[in-house]
Amino acid sequence: MLKLILIGTGNVASHLFNTFLNSKEVSIEQVFGRNQEKLKKFSKYVPVTSLSSEIKEADIYIIAVSDDVIISVAQLLGNKQGIIAHTSGSVSIKALNHKKAAVFYPLQTFTKNKKIDFSSIPICLEASNKEDLIVLNKLAKNLSNSIFEVSSSQRKKLHLAAVFANNFTNHLFQISKDLCDSEKLPFDILKPLIYETAKKLEDLNPSEAQTGPAKRNDVETMQQHLEQLKDPIHKKLYQLISESIIDSNEKKL
Amino acid sequence: MLKLILIGTGNVASHLFNTFLNSKEVSIEQVFGRNQEKLKKFSKYVPVTSLSSEIKEADIYIIAVSDDVIISVAQLLGNKQGIIAHTSGSVSIKALNHKKAAVFYPLQTFTKNKKIDFSSIPICLEASNKEDLIVLNKLAKNLSNSIFEVSSSQRKKLHLAAVFANNFTNHLFQISKDLCDSEKLPFDILKPLIYETAKKLEDLNPSEAQTGPAKRNDVETMQQHLEQLKDPIHKKLYQLISESIIDSNEKKL
Repeated sequence: MLKLILIGTGNVASHLFNTFLNSKEVSIEQVFGRNQEKLKKFSKYVPVTSLSSEIKEADIYIIAVSDDVIISVAQLLGNKQGIIAHTSGSVSIKALNHKKAAVFYPLQTFTKNKKIDFSSIPICLEASNKEDLIVLNKLAKNLSNSIFEVSSSQRKKLHLAAVFANNFTNHLFQISKDLCDSEKLPFDILKPLIYETAKKLEDLNPSEAQTGPAKRNDVETMQQHLEQLKDPIHKKLYQLISESIIDSNEKKL
Repeated sequence: MLKLILIGTGNVASHLFNTFLNSKEVSIEQVFGRNQEKLKKFSKYVPVTSLSSEIKEADIYIIAVSDDVIISVAQLLGNKQGIIAHTSGSVSIKALNHKKAAVFYPLQTFTKNKKIDFSSIPICLEASNKEDLIVLNKLAKNLSNSIFEVSSSQRKKLHLAAVFANNFTNHLFQISKDLCDSEKLPFDILKPLIYETAKKLEDLNPSEAQTGPAKRNDVETMQQHLEQLKDPIHKKLYQLISESIIDSNEKKL
């Protein structure tokens, strides 16, 4: 039985908590968090504390807090003997400054109150030694079938890639919704296209799947589109993404 | 039984052909196309021709050709009595210059040799009169459960919205794949995130679903990301999309 202590009470901590709570190989010994109000929902199931002096001993401490407080939270665990793993995409393993420092990074977008099925979520692991990596693997297998060993420098790039694939993509969906709204068209009309755009990647890589006026270098259509865009930032975005598509085309030739 | 003639032999024409061929309420009378080689695969099932003088009479002519030849192809049908409908997102109904001009625009991305299930694809209809709209509706119901009446000016905006939601999004996937490649990480590691980004829209609108460093105005992470991007166009893209996310944030406040 792996003894686990969760540090944090936010979105990622809650999702991990809910999944590990039902695991037969993991026992959540305690949840630590600064916010007493947020600790309440955990206290129904396991011991909780907001005092760092009360943090118990465990095999693994999972730090699921905002990037900017990881270092200060890790300092509270400086004298612990267990593995200390953060869950961030962009913070180096070195930030933990611990001989059993590790990373347990689930690569997914977490939405409050929306249940997550971890089984297909990639878990990116990094450890300070082989023994710890074996323990982290055991822990990760309780969540997911998709486990990767990813170094800090790889993870940094991966996090950047995820910003393009998720955050930026979602913003483009926002712009397309605004365009629908401006003509009183329901955004639902675009959703099948959006799903297919993602699903296509099962069969084709993105460069094979690329279509549209920029791909065809269809100057007339691009000009018409630009004239329809009122927001100056959206206009610049249209131009720059089109330029980038044309640039990729030329690099392929 | 609706008598249908298909004009064109490309991607959209092939997908429509395969679906209508199995319909009990639609009879494909003929396929017309300039390219004799491409006509061959249709000729196994229905009469084909590459001579405009041989085009038969029908209830509906569906023009599924590139935008830039729609006008010239429509001229070949000037003396026909049936409904003349093009399938383009960006061309006005007026371009057809026919008293029974119409639009039959399936809003989806079509990939060669990849079978399409039309049932959930939105079909956007426009007609020159109510009677023709009823006929087009009957035709569309043979394909899809999702039918919309969309005017030429609405369709123009919708097509632009689709460029953001599909073409531009796919290009961001390309950039994220390049970033994975640069660190020898499999692109598969990002796919669950990409699916979830699309799936989230079932429950949340994109502005609610927005996360990431730009949303949080996390200047330090954005700076680190910019330093990692080598391609100058990708750097500019990162800055501009982040700027656009921050701008949307401020407009919401």
